Amino acid sequence: MTAKIRLYVEHALQQGQSVPVSRDQAHYLFGVMRLDVGAQVLLFDGHSGEWLADVVEAGKRRGVLQVVQQTRPLQMPPDLWLLFAPIKKARTDFIVEKAVEMGAARVVPVQTEYTNAGRVQRDRLQAHAVEAAEQCGGTFVPEVAPLVRFDRMLADWGTDRQIMFCDETQLALKPALPTTRGPWAILIGPEGGFSPAERTRLRGFDQAHPVSLGPRVLRADTAAVAALTLWQAALGDWV
Amino acid sequence: MTAKIRLYVEHALQQGQSVPVSRDQAHYLFGVMRLDVGAQVLLFDGHSGEWLADVVEAGKRRGVLQVVQQTRPLQMPPDLWLLFAPIKKARTDFIVEKAVEMGAARVVPVQTEYTNAGRVQRDRLQAHAVEAAEQCGGTFVPEVAPLVRFDRMLADWGTDRQIMFCDETQLALKPALPTTRGPWAILIGPEGGFSPAERTRLRGFDQAHPVSLGPRVLRADTAAVAALTLWQAALGDWV
Repeated sequence: MTAKIRLYVEHALQQGQSVPVSRDQAHYLFGVMRLDVGAQVLLFDGHSGEWLADVVEAGKRRGVLQVVQQTRPLQMPPDLWLLFAPIKKARTDFIVEKAVEMGAARVVPVQTEYTNAGRVQRDRLQAHAVEAAEQCGGTFVPEVAPLVRFDRMLADWGTDRQIMFCDETQLALKPALPTTRGPWAILIGPEGGFSPAERTRLRGFDQAHPVSLGPRVLRADTAAVAALTLWQAALGDWV
Repeated sequence: MTAKIRLYVEHALQQGQSVPVSRDQAHYLFGVMRLDVGAQVLLFDGHSGEWLADVVEAGKRRGVLQVVQQTRPLQMPPDLWLLFAPIKKARTDFIVEKAVEMGAARVVPVQTEYTNAGRVQRDRLQAHAVEAAEQCGGTFVPEVAPLVRFDRMLADWGTDRQIMFCDETQLALKPALPTTRGPWAILIGPEGGFSPAERTRLRGFDQAHPVSLGPRVLRADTAAVAALTLWQAALGDWV
């Protein structure tokens, strides 16, 4: 069996539903992939699982799919956020992609003192999240939140969510695995690390837990995957 | 203190040693970074740790450094190999970079049935390994081995090295952490997975241990970091 194309659609899905495809998707499905009427694709809308659909109209700029049946239920990731300081464009894209594959429920770009980026292209990052969900077989697409300043983020922080933060100055630490159940966030610092003020702030923050990611200095994208792995294997949907 | 530039050199290092720099390194140090006589850099040769060195000659195409003193001893990674099926160029480069950051001692491209690449640009991959070691503060550069065929690799496998392999068909498995000490290898399959014959071969191989990396399908580069994390946190230099 050939792997079917998986597409995220914003249209709510249910059995028998007709789904118009966007211009970009029509180009991809009928132009690039050369699907024709009668071909089948897999669809997910982020809320109702995954569905098999038939191509019922295939045009250059438009098309219609019809939902046949559900193939998988919705599988939500654990209540885990990935907070990261935006870095160079390609690596920021990678971090978003990795967050989706690794099962983060929300992705939050954070502006720290040593973060160069004063803004992020949220649309582009959200599109990367969609593409990663299509690719990794997910049925959920995490929201990419607006860029938030580090101090504002902590000032508004709820009391019920723990933070696992990766501190490059803690190379001697063991990789303390999280043990408290409930909502969590993983915070990856910028490549220059947190500022002394930020570090002090985090250390004084009850819900914040430093972890070490070994004796080498990891790039932010590597650190994101490593920290997500430790969390998923200890408390998440890998266990 | 500003972070010093770290350079890998092929020249063996010891106190007082004069080290000629390559044309590329001269361009980088004296052209791009504009270092001049009297500036200091950190050097490592992969065998003797890290050394502080003075710039004693700085030209457009050449230069000389003189080793002042050792700043760190050699820190070898654990005896862990990363075996992976080469994929698209950029992601193959990433896998090599990640292997170095995460502390693999050797990187081995493996040609499986579903691997497209019939060859790899080993020089380019080795250069990526050097760059990653310079970046992550490592004092050791893993060798990138020549591309080996999957069946030949297993036929020649020694008896003392365990293999942790990541099997996308084992999504129901727990992430079984390795517990046997000694030499290990992590084997990451191609994005299409192992072939049925390869899977059978691995399952019949005494030293091979399947692990799951959660309920989503990970890209090969993500899987490499995740598997290295599980191993390092269980048996490696993160504990």
